[in-house]
Amino acid sequence: MADVKKVVLAYSGGLDTSVILKWLQDTYNCEVVTFTADLGQGEEVEPARAKAQAMGVKEIYIDDLREEFVRDFVFPMFRANTVYEGEYLLGTSIARPLIAKRLIEIANETGADAISHGATGKGNDQVRFELGAYALKPGVKVIAPWREWDLLSREKLMDYAEKHGIPIERHGKKKSPYSMDANLLHISYEGGVLEDTWTEHEEDMWRWSVSPENAPDQATYLELTYRNGDIVAIDGVEMTPATVLAELNRIGGANGIGRLDIVENRYVGMKSRGCYETPGGTIMLKAHRAIESITLDREVAHLKDELMPKYASLIYTGYWWSPERLMLQQMIDASQVNVNGVVRLKLYKGNVIVTGRKSDDSLFDANIATFEEDGGAYNQADAAGFIKLNALRMRIAASKGRSPL
Amino acid sequence: MADVKKVVLAYSGGLDTSVILKWLQDTYNCEVVTFTADLGQGEEVEPARAKAQAMGVKEIYIDDLREEFVRDFVFPMFRANTVYEGEYLLGTSIARPLIAKRLIEIANETGADAISHGATGKGNDQVRFELGAYALKPGVKVIAPWREWDLLSREKLMDYAEKHGIPIERHGKKKSPYSMDANLLHISYEGGVLEDTWTEHEEDMWRWSVSPENAPDQATYLELTYRNGDIVAIDGVEMTPATVLAELNRIGGANGIGRLDIVENRYVGMKSRGCYETPGGTIMLKAHRAIESITLDREVAHLKDELMPKYASLIYTGYWWSPERLMLQQMIDASQVNVNGVVRLKLYKGNVIVTGRKSDDSLFDANIATFEEDGGAYNQADAAGFIKLNALRMRIAASKGRSPL
Amino acid sequence: MADVKKVVLAYSGGLDTSVILKWLQDTYNCEVVTFTADLGQGEEVEPARAKAQAMGVKEIYIDDLREEFVRDFVFPMFRANTVYEGEYLLGTSIARPLIAKRLIEIANETGADAISHGATGKGNDQVRFELGAYALKPGVKVIAPWREWDLLSREKLMDYAEKHGIPIERHGKKKSPYSMDANLLHISYEGGVLEDTWTEHEEDMWRWSVSPENAPDQATYLELTYRNGDIVAIDGVEMTPATVLAELNRIGGANGIGRLDIVENRYVGMKSRGCYETPGGTIMLKAHRAIESITLDREVAHLKDELMPKYASLIYTGYWWSPERLMLQQMIDASQVNVNGVVRLKLYKGNVIVTGRKSDDSLFDANIATFEEDGGAYNQADAAGFIKLNALRMRIAASKGRSPL
Amino acid sequence: MADVKKVVLAYSGGLDTSVILKWLQDTYNCEVVTFTADLGQGEEVEPARAKAQAMGVKEIYIDDLREEFVRDFVFPMFRANTVYEGEYLLGTSIARPLIAKRLIEIANETGADAISHGATGKGNDQVRFELGAYALKPGVKVIAPWREWDLLSREKLMDYAEKHGIPIERHGKKKSPYSMDANLLHISYEGGVLEDTWTEHEEDMWRWSVSPENAPDQATYLELTYRNGDIVAIDGVEMTPATVLAELNRIGGANGIGRLDIVENRYVGMKSRGCYETPGGTIMLKAHRAIESITLDREVAHLKDELMPKYASLIYTGYWWSPERLMLQQMIDASQVNVNGVVRLKLYKGNVIVTGRKSDDSLFDANIATFEEDGGAYNQADAAGFIKLNALRMRIAASKGRSPL
Repeated sequence: MADVKKVVLAYSGGLDTSVILKWLQDTYNCEVVTFTADLGQGEEVEPARAKAQAMGVKEIYIDDLREEFVRDFVFPMFRANTVYEGEYLLGTSIARPLIAKRLIEIANETGADAISHGATGKGNDQVRFELGAYALKPGVKVIAPWREWDLLSREKLMDYAEKHGIPIERHGKKKSPYSMDANLLHISYEGGVLEDTWTEHEEDMWRWSVSPENAPDQATYLELTYRNGDIVAIDGVEMTPATVLAELNRIGGANGIGRLDIVENRYVGMKSRGCYETPGGTIMLKAHRAIESITLDREVAHLKDELMPKYASLIYTGYWWSPERLMLQQMIDASQVNVNGVVRLKLYKGNVIVTGRKSDDSLFDANIATFEEDGGAYNQADAAGFIKLNALRMRIAASKGRSPL
Repeated sequence: MADVKKVVLAYSGGLDTSVILKWLQDTYNCEVVTFTADLGQGEEVEPARAKAQAMGVKEIYIDDLREEFVRDFVFPMFRANTVYEGEYLLGTSIARPLIAKRLIEIANETGADAISHGATGKGNDQVRFELGAYALKPGVKVIAPWREWDLLSREKLMDYAEKHGIPIERHGKKKSPYSMDANLLHISYEGGVLEDTWTEHEEDMWRWSVSPENAPDQATYLELTYRNGDIVAIDGVEMTPATVLAELNRIGGANGIGRLDIVENRYVGMKSRGCYETPGGTIMLKAHRAIESITLDREVAHLKDELMPKYASLIYTGYWWSPERLMLQQMIDASQVNVNGVVRLKLYKGNVIVTGRKSDDSLFDANIATFEEDGGAYNQADAAGFIKLNALRMRIAASKGRSPL
Repeated sequence: MADVKKVVLAYSGGLDTSVILKWLQDTYNCEVVTFTADLGQGEEVEPARAKAQAMGVKEIYIDDLREEFVRDFVFPMFRANTVYEGEYLLGTSIARPLIAKRLIEIANETGADAISHGATGKGNDQVRFELGAYALKPGVKVIAPWREWDLLSREKLMDYAEKHGIPIERHGKKKSPYSMDANLLHISYEGGVLEDTWTEHEEDMWRWSVSPENAPDQATYLELTYRNGDIVAIDGVEMTPATVLAELNRIGGANGIGRLDIVENRYVGMKSRGCYETPGGTIMLKAHRAIESITLDREVAHLKDELMPKYASLIYTGYWWSPERLMLQQMIDASQVNVNGVVRLKLYKGNVIVTGRKSDDSLFDANIATFEEDGGAYNQADAAGFIKLNALRMRIAASKGRSPL
Repeated sequence: MADVKKVVLAYSGGLDTSVILKWLQDTYNCEVVTFTADLGQGEEVEPARAKAQAMGVKEIYIDDLREEFVRDFVFPMFRANTVYEGEYLLGTSIARPLIAKRLIEIANETGADAISHGATGKGNDQVRFELGAYALKPGVKVIAPWREWDLLSREKLMDYAEKHGIPIERHGKKKSPYSMDANLLHISYEGGVLEDTWTEHEEDMWRWSVSPENAPDQATYLELTYRNGDIVAIDGVEMTPATVLAELNRIGGANGIGRLDIVENRYVGMKSRGCYETPGGTIMLKAHRAIESITLDREVAHLKDELMPKYASLIYTGYWWSPERLMLQQMIDASQVNVNGVVRLKLYKGNVIVTGRKSDDSLFDANIATFEEDGGAYNQADAAGFIKLNALRMRIAASKGRSPL
């Protein structure tokens, strides 16, 4: 067991991380610094202060990171139209590097030599926290209690809490059967009945959105203004990044948008089923592709598409702070300089429908694309040579007996 | 002007290709063979026979290619989860290589030395037809009247038709303002009001699907059975490929599924707006990803995702018959050997929702993925070493002063 | 410590694996099966039999795997022009999956439940052995003594050997200061003075090749015949794969060919310096590119080049038996069907110079490529349209103010 | 024929471009501006002035572009270790975009509406010139005489010259049978006996280098200093980019380094054989990889390797001024910030041998990589977990019956 003097704990104030707090104090006989972040998860963060104080914590950090989260993590990711395995918008993945960064910053400020988190040894989050931490502070010690202790069942955890006087809040409402994670980008559900891939998810699992069935019968129209690939205004009203996302979550959720039920491949080697609600993100992905469709060069767009799966994997697997992600980001950001304009969307019962896009930087040229006579803007005869030379290698091959017929 | 003895014309029986037929006879003073294909476009093909006969055509080919189209073109493409520029399901693109193939086969059978088609000089279709033709018969001559003649406006075309006694059917219904193309996979719309990217598409443009608003208030559930990556049964009833797709179009269209409004990048260098209805294809894409999610290895899936944009571009730009597409297809097909099982979907007002997937070849292992104790199936301590070594290069870099902080 | 009944040990007969043999017997109290392979490393394998018998081993496998090694591992790898990090021909990497395969086959034959190897915990080889073993027999136990025991220094190892009566052969010649590995494809050197990246390698380190300085002053000419991407004859004499490679090693080594001194990135996260002699492989890489240059389609060649670094990494990191490597191999092999013909090389003091290539499947067409008049084989006017349409997107962009000037 | 007022001609002063000059004046009845560049081709550029004046040209540009060429084109390209089709160092390709840029700059300065060049309609150079020109000045007219006129044979050209009083210099030395191109990076040879791929190139074809046979028997040692991926000093002496390259050409050529004989795939669809001498470039490629090997992160290096073939193709096919090349360059340049240090090379009869590399930014850590005990810098036990989790997906697959055995 490592010799630890002071550890910064990612502390939610809930039962699990409270047990961890106590366990760290007892097991490592070290000082604990708590760090609680408001990432837009929709829960109060202030109550964590009293709880930490009650357990004797002297250095307590409670940060509102919502703007930094959206501005420096969510928005850069959406510039790449990032989707993992064709479906997942990386809501959990993208929050972890920010938490890792704050853990290390706080460790540096408080002179702590270790960090700790409550992620299990089976999931991706431990990797995301720890790769980030190591990349930012190579000598840091990492304590991952779920990989060390023997409290692997919920029952043992409760016993430990009770034995050590950690308050277990028993709400009137039943404990959710799902393992959940939330931030401004999404809320996720794993476990419970989802562990059978054939069983349909339950309607009452979802928390952020109404079902398409229960969404309004009237469509909602929306105009999003882009500047350098990021949304800066909704219906003409300029907003901060976090406000944009919160507002899109509200509108999207009300229209039954952004639910997802998938089986994904974890970095640690297993498949796992997850359900996600990402109302704002679902809207942003569709709209960003639309604004890029008129402002981005074809080959730039295709290069981005070819690199996207790699970029998405880097985020999913926790390499946000790696040099290769930073290098890719430079290229992605450089591509966005002309991604300016407005996208008009129609939201209706789960559907995000693009109905218009315009831009002063549009590369769409109606004079050239028209089906009417174009007055010489485009010389159709050029196509003959274009095709002939593109075909030449195949014609030579076929003439040497390699026709696929 | 090339010296042509006999030309095979892709003939729809409509005004444009009837004018082309006449123009070929007059301009090249050559024999014309007509080829009319039923690709599921939803129009009668037999009437083309009488029209061709009336213009003196002796060799008339009318083929029902629906099964070949879906089995050998559509299904292989969907094995790769193919999407062009993040949105387009390639409905037009995938039909062209089959037409090219038949044109060449017929040229070989009839001893023709040329082919001809009615695609314009501004679009992708000319490229797709001609690249295919050249790859399959390198010495073939290609006549693309739209690049040669001076009938570029509709008015001139009508004049020509009238002057040469080509019957212009004047239906009671107004001529569509859109340029359209249809086959079993989709129907497309270009031109008209769509030439302004900011103008919303009109509701009465769509032909295959009801709007989400007009779709039933009751969801439709569906089970699709996969074998080697292809759908072989719907709700347990085995069907041929074309029947599968027709049935999915019917069900999807009735539920408001598969409409798309995009601006895409043509191979000839311009951006163009297109609207598409692809009800069955939209369902197939979602379902295929779902069955792959439990049956495909992670790295195989990721490799497919990384290569997909390239593969999609090859199909979009007309390289179906190229050696590189054939080589990629070998890899894609090889990946599908275990893609077997059943996907359950819920269709509701434009939404395709996956509610379950199961397979005898599933790689999902609930014992390992579970949030409960797993009885030793997975050793959480392994994760520590996994993370440590994955972090090593970044730790060394940070210790040499390269921390991103 | 795992409960092991019988373990198959990759046994060279040398000091290290002899100590491991004894240590396994003592520590695990289990039966040991030895497996010794002739991969062309240039050392006798039969002496391993007596040594194993002397330590009480009852099941002793000594296999000549040279043909299988070259035919099923080396040749398929060279079909992809595989090079890791621009330099390394993967001589060690490619032998490991064959050893892993034999270990598992022998485990299956002898009813063993474990395998063991002598690779250290810092290198790539442990990963290659074990990933292979797990992929082929998922429940197998792996014993990697270097990660478990406390004999980490050479001195302690010698003490252990002496204490347990393991014969330490003290040759007249001094023990090499390098860690070496050899098989038919290469011999490698690590450690010693190489651990300072600025220090020049020593001339007397090299074992397989003369220096360019000491190579003959007369060039050697060579003709290699390819069939489906593999060499089948040297100077017109048909040979088996292993004979081809042995012969190329002999000729190449005599001409000072194939030495390499690099710093490479190990899979476990560190950089390490290695020196390699790969005489035959260096010739094969150059010659294979030459035969492909006239027989392979351009886009197929480019696709292979784009995928090669990924393929090389898969082999380097031990994923030979992974589904993604197998999938890539299908594509690579499919590309080789027309890679037939003859390459003529000139070898001279370290240089491999291509002086000619010919093939019945050549796509080189002198009539089209000629600088003389070509009699109409190629229409230069086609190039105008080709360029115009390829430029169109950039012209539109520039006309909208995006010129890079 | 386009209506042209003033045209900027890329003018070498030789016979071909002199004929073009005259032909432009006569055919287009327009003013001609000549542009002659010193790119290090090793021929006097000043004589072009008198020749142009003699033909009545009023605006004559003669530029020494050597430093700009190496600094802004050659060096950026070498940062990516750029090689086309595994062999070709792109010596011709990389010079064309600079000429295109100057043609357009001069057109803008002189108010010309057209440019012209002497490249044939079969090659890559026309594409490179014209794509560059269109990207930089979308409305420019391009006159490519070789695609327009009827002077396709040398004889007709000579007749034209004689008829129009264009002086044909008849040197004592015989006209080279090769089509050649030279600049500071390389000299190339095409045509003549090279049009048979089986015929060996002739020794007396080469102009810049001695043969390995004729190179000194004594090796030359060299130390190259890198800053941000570019060479800034040779043997400790700081030099400008062009001086670095000229000096490396001198040293390399004297040691028989940098000859190449290949068959390459042209953009216009045919295969063509070329011989190249690139002494300095061959040294730079090897040395750059060596300095990157100790200063670059593994994944950054691998990402660069995966993108390099695409980047090389972009340069080969003339897309230097495209947005996708510019985007890739941003990423490549960003990767070079730590590529600093010194590489020591040994040059000997055609061989470039790396004998050492050192850097203050080295990521090589001898303490971790050592074969000796490392005092705990690396925990070998970590490797077990690393392997286990990397193997997990394959173990699950094998346990479901998917073992490749």
